[in-house]
Amino acid sequence: MSLLVVGSVAFDAIETPFGKTDKIVGGAASYIALATSYFTPKTKLVAVVGDDFPTDFINTLNQRGVNTEGLQIKKGQKSFFWSGKYHTDMNSRDTLVTELNVLGDFDPVVPESYQDCEYLMLGNLTPAVQQTVINRLRKRPKLIVMDTMNFWMEVAMDDLRKTISMVDVLTINDEEARQLSGEYSLVKAAAKIQAMGPSFLIIKKGENGALLFHGKEVFFAPALPLEEVFDPTGAGDTFAGGFIGYLAKTDDTSFENMKNAIIYGSAMASFCVEKFGTERIMNLQEDELLARINQFRNLVRFNMASL
Amino acid sequence: MSLLVVGSVAFDAIETPFGKTDKIVGGAASYIALATSYFTPKTKLVAVVGDDFPTDFINTLNQRGVNTEGLQIKKGQKSFFWSGKYHTDMNSRDTLVTELNVLGDFDPVVPESYQDCEYLMLGNLTPAVQQTVINRLRKRPKLIVMDTMNFWMEVAMDDLRKTISMVDVLTINDEEARQLSGEYSLVKAAAKIQAMGPSFLIIKKGENGALLFHGKEVFFAPALPLEEVFDPTGAGDTFAGGFIGYLAKTDDTSFENMKNAIIYGSAMASFCVEKFGTERIMNLQEDELLARINQFRNLVRFNMASL
Repeated sequence: MSLLVVGSVAFDAIETPFGKTDKIVGGAASYIALATSYFTPKTKLVAVVGDDFPTDFINTLNQRGVNTEGLQIKKGQKSFFWSGKYHTDMNSRDTLVTELNVLGDFDPVVPESYQDCEYLMLGNLTPAVQQTVINRLRKRPKLIVMDTMNFWMEVAMDDLRKTISMVDVLTINDEEARQLSGEYSLVKAAAKIQAMGPSFLIIKKGENGALLFHGKEVFFAPALPLEEVFDPTGAGDTFAGGFIGYLAKTDDTSFENMKNAIIYGSAMASFCVEKFGTERIMNLQEDELLARINQFRNLVRFNMASL
Repeated sequence: MSLLVVGSVAFDAIETPFGKTDKIVGGAASYIALATSYFTPKTKLVAVVGDDFPTDFINTLNQRGVNTEGLQIKKGQKSFFWSGKYHTDMNSRDTLVTELNVLGDFDPVVPESYQDCEYLMLGNLTPAVQQTVINRLRKRPKLIVMDTMNFWMEVAMDDLRKTISMVDVLTINDEEARQLSGEYSLVKAAAKIQAMGPSFLIIKKGENGALLFHGKEVFFAPALPLEEVFDPTGAGDTFAGGFIGYLAKTDDTSFENMKNAIIYGSAMASFCVEKFGTERIMNLQEDELLARINQFRNLVRFNMASL
């Protein structure tokens, strides 16, 4: 099934306890589109960059089957740039630089050839822009998945609530779920957030896995215990890409199949953190991915004799 | 199989965001023995209290099949007392009062009738006292499980390391595993700690579940997402009790069976936190426990078609 991805395509400069990078390619939609490309040859990208953005990366996306007709390249302007430094625990980071550049007045263009999309992934972005993309699709996609972050709760809560009310699946982390709902218990938070619109909620807990809520049902996917997390940047985006990519590939949006999709998303994310930026998920072999899926299976499997 | 439990039997006064208690019965061995009593009628307790300790609680233990011949009651002395206050997130707490009392010079007595014990649970206690109990058993038990905490790493590291070298399974939380090993990555921490002696390591992550490491193998058990955690006191002890209780009942110390034991431990702990102190785990019905085991099963179960 064809899949539309919207989000930032940008530059990052990252410092972790293991090293630092100069400007490298980053942005939510870069990670998402790379991840979805392992599942469907029909990923379509809506994003904006300046003319400082490397053609090489766009070529790589195209070679992986990603349609970039909706990627605007703004002459004489600069791409979005973020720079951050991770703390020792890798769960927290300081933002050093944020330059909005082309993202400041991003008006997303949805090409005619994208109008048939059945799956829509709204990567982390200004909620009003996410909303515009939904509104510019003449037919509502079968499934809309939205990722967001605490920043928008602080500066654009009304827009955020409106956009959340329009989607089927929301993915946020545990602290954001608490902030959005005002509830400390994630079970209570999940009920409140579902009442805002999305019938599925994924709460990401980083190295502690992810929870999928749907009505009274809940599924838990662990994160793989890793020897080393080299760079967590993009892990959440890659997770979202693996998740919606698997759903688009199987074209099954049931709760049961979403469990599988979360396992695939978690597996993709576990690769992402092994190297800086998008490096690791640009070169993934199918057998590596399947081997990791089996690791997830073994991680939680138990066989109790008598029940 | 008969099971020896050593640890504190004591008084706690607890304050959580949901309320506070006066002095109630607490202590690692109280929680552990109550938990093991659901699995084996052959729990034998080694502990010490003052004559201020309620006979009612000892009677309850006896009624649940716990042998208290090794519970010393010190005339004219007071029981160990701890008082603490939990923060809103329930994952951290301040200790308000610690009165060692009878625990200050606890010399554990192992009655002759306990010498046949095949399973030994060393609840959190001075490492030297834990060690004494091992040394006072003429035959080494089939399995020794040890729980401890960061406090002993700060005041008795040498004794702690010695005791750790003598056990089969160590249970500690994630921060303690990092402190003990000097490694941030739990995978690396687990390897270092196993090299200290225990061939199995359980890393408890509270609301984020628990990891079991054994050589290169790893198993992850989630915690049940709960609407409310009323009082986390004793959850780790109850977990340990459910864990070793299940192993003693099934008399199977394989890695595969330890997975089941961890699920039982997690289920027992999920009850413990529903009420103050030992209240909830004093009155547990078998069908409640089995229903909860099924919740754990459903929480992590996924069925992927094509692998």
